[in-house]
Amino acid sequence: MAQQRKITLSESEIPEKWYNIAADMPNKPLPPLNPATNEPIGPDALAPLFPMGLIQQEVSTERWIEIPDEVRDAYSIWRPTPMYRALELEKALDTPAKIYYKYEGISPAGSHKPNTAIPQAWYNKQEGVKRITTETGAGQWGSALSFATQKFGIDLEVYMVKISYEQKPYRKLMMNTWGAEVIPSPSTKTEAGRKILAGDPDSPGSLGIAISEAVERAAMNEDTKYALGSVLNHVLLHQTIIGQEAIKQLEKAGDLPDIVIAPFGGGSNFAGIAFPFLRLNLTEGKKIRAIASEPASCPKLTRGVFRYDFGDTVGMTPLLPMFTLGHNFVPDKIHAGGLRYHGAGVLVSQLLKDKLIEAKAHHQLECFEAGVLFAKTEGIIPAPEATHGIATVVAEAKRAKEEGVSKTILFNLCGHGHFDMSAYDAYFSGKLEEHELTEAEINSSLSELTTPEIPA
Amino acid sequence: MAQQRKITLSESEIPEKWYNIAADMPNKPLPPLNPATNEPIGPDALAPLFPMGLIQQEVSTERWIEIPDEVRDAYSIWRPTPMYRALELEKALDTPAKIYYKYEGISPAGSHKPNTAIPQAWYNKQEGVKRITTETGAGQWGSALSFATQKFGIDLEVYMVKISYEQKPYRKLMMNTWGAEVIPSPSTKTEAGRKILAGDPDSPGSLGIAISEAVERAAMNEDTKYALGSVLNHVLLHQTIIGQEAIKQLEKAGDLPDIVIAPFGGGSNFAGIAFPFLRLNLTEGKKIRAIASEPASCPKLTRGVFRYDFGDTVGMTPLLPMFTLGHNFVPDKIHAGGLRYHGAGVLVSQLLKDKLIEAKAHHQLECFEAGVLFAKTEGIIPAPEATHGIATVVAEAKRAKEEGVSKTILFNLCGHGHFDMSAYDAYFSGKLEEHELTEAEINSSLSELTTPEIPA
Repeated sequence: MAQQRKITLSESEIPEKWYNIAADMPNKPLPPLNPATNEPIGPDALAPLFPMGLIQQEVSTERWIEIPDEVRDAYSIWRPTPMYRALELEKALDTPAKIYYKYEGISPAGSHKPNTAIPQAWYNKQEGVKRITTETGAGQWGSALSFATQKFGIDLEVYMVKISYEQKPYRKLMMNTWGAEVIPSPSTKTEAGRKILAGDPDSPGSLGIAISEAVERAAMNEDTKYALGSVLNHVLLHQTIIGQEAIKQLEKAGDLPDIVIAPFGGGSNFAGIAFPFLRLNLTEGKKIRAIASEPASCPKLTRGVFRYDFGDTVGMTPLLPMFTLGHNFVPDKIHAGGLRYHGAGVLVSQLLKDKLIEAKAHHQLECFEAGVLFAKTEGIIPAPEATHGIATVVAEAKRAKEEGVSKTILFNLCGHGHFDMSAYDAYFSGKLEEHELTEAEINSSLSELTTPEIPA
Repeated sequence: MAQQRKITLSESEIPEKWYNIAADMPNKPLPPLNPATNEPIGPDALAPLFPMGLIQQEVSTERWIEIPDEVRDAYSIWRPTPMYRALELEKALDTPAKIYYKYEGISPAGSHKPNTAIPQAWYNKQEGVKRITTETGAGQWGSALSFATQKFGIDLEVYMVKISYEQKPYRKLMMNTWGAEVIPSPSTKTEAGRKILAGDPDSPGSLGIAISEAVERAAMNEDTKYALGSVLNHVLLHQTIIGQEAIKQLEKAGDLPDIVIAPFGGGSNFAGIAFPFLRLNLTEGKKIRAIASEPASCPKLTRGVFRYDFGDTVGMTPLLPMFTLGHNFVPDKIHAGGLRYHGAGVLVSQLLKDKLIEAKAHHQLECFEAGVLFAKTEGIIPAPEATHGIATVVAEAKRAKEEGVSKTILFNLCGHGHFDMSAYDAYFSGKLEEHELTEAEINSSLSELTTPEIPA
């Protein structure tokens, strides 16, 4: 038989600990601030929204955090995920680069999101939480959490961005199948939603608005907590099983990447695969490049500023030190709904500030071209979010060819596109629209910020 | 960690040969007949439709047929597929039975169909075929063959049952993504299609009609061949890699099934997992029960007759000795489109006739109940076709509980339901309709048959 394509691990090789990069960062992240006082807040301020088990992870500086047995057991429903050598893509690109990908789309919800949904549901369960609220854009996170909460017997209320609720009925049905209640956002269930609807009854919604609604519901109800699918430290922490498995798999192939690539929304996808490799840079002197691939229409990493900002649109969350386009920034309605978020997680922001990682922005047309090439060669139809990483891979593989050097590239194929075929329809029929984001638009959004700046 | 859920194989454990059950059957299948003369036909009669490489497999009585290296290499894109112990389903059913499932939904097209699409495309390629025609119902087979033909650089023309073409735009887009032309059937491209449209301009189409169209196109064009996704001996042969892998996986778990179960459309899904286990019955004296799960609305195995019939609706194919409801039988529009076929493959029919296998029919409401239970417990949302197998599994697991005996049950989870969420919508909203099929209806369809009967 020809070259090996697939590198698998056995169930016993599921990592036993999550990796906390905060332990190894040369500059620790700045603290979150209370927006009323601009003073640093402690863990207790998060208690209305999150169980203590997760808050402890949020502020931890321990390098390794043990994965509870029940969580590892639930992980084993789909983990370890396979790693593939993209032999057919390499051939099509005629590149000397070796391309590997970790495939997270085999999870029940079809993306990497269950990696954090499962432990979040479990820690809530330990503290007797009866109901969780959350938001979802394209539906990846909402379905992952639906799967996780039904597994541990917790009720779930999902605020789904209204335009996605209408355009993606199948994701909604998937959540219903797993027992969740799905509410189009903005809704009349919350003060935040009513305020938006008063200003614009036809509001298509946004992730920021949906976060405001879900947070409000949790803050107002004793037995209810809130869960976020990206951005926060504990979410990024849970995803590090991806990169840890990837290291083991590449070891089996006798390889180590020169470049690690992942799509970037709030940071969990990128952190999941990249942080364990960054550990090798930070503690063993390796020089692996980590590149975050973001949409050109929502370029917080490549064109945003590093300052304090809210995590949501209405301004209910603590202030976080992040690369941001401003919490009122409204990105184009690109098909990669999971990447339409105004800011970047705190850990990733600090790493970018310290030039320990890189970022690259792509227009969606380039992304879908790369995605279709991938589907034709490797067989898997990638989610629109995932095509951003593939666009960076294609660019780096072409560069390797031009420079005549063999590079080893690893990327995270975070999910399949089975529920996003309408996006491919738009691509094939030439209807992918995206306007060129101007400096003036970005400056206009940023100029509205009154939150504290961070001195250089 | 708790009990092991997943049993994987390495790429080198992909079987090297397909298993041909014809070698071990006590009664060999009767020959196909020329419908004009009712005389047996030889391999040459199939040459206008199929390449010789596949025709040789169709008539072979060799026990093992070598899998070409290039086919095994293409298999390695997704094979070996994982096997799971359904621990959560067992818990929910509170059964002493051990339930395992082989998961074929991880293939690029999301079902077991690529197992035969890949070799079919490859054998056509070897003989210089430029274009293949085929039919597809729900789209599983069409997308599998699209993936396979683009891999080997062959054009593909897919006749898709019109009602599915309209109701399942995403499956069509998947085929387009892999470069296939998809035509709603009945179409004006063929004599067969025009004949149907003349009688009923609004015909929703059927698998039988679409087969007639695809066969006509291949018969009329020198450089074009036809491909079928089930029923025929060589198709069933290719699928036997499923059961061969399953035997290796169960060996690793130290187990052997008492019962093997799979959904039944034309036979390839069932044959794929069951034939390698039936070999153990036929050659080693094992007593493994093999149960085919069919829809109550299309019950060829449980209520059909064993006689010669056409494979298509219009009557273009050779006559095959099969369990059939009559080639003009029109089943209810149940959501398991892949099971709406009037007949059963020749090999499976002979085995049923000889009481070497069993069959069980289920109403779709029972199937979706079982499917949702499976999704809630095991996390994977099954295709409507797959829910039929799960319904049999649930029935057998409950029986094991009643009888207080531990049985080991294995079933083939042939595909995911990501493109069938509208069927789950119908289920949740109480709109699953299915009329009770009467004896009179079956007799009426069978009484139209003028094809040769088979003496008992």
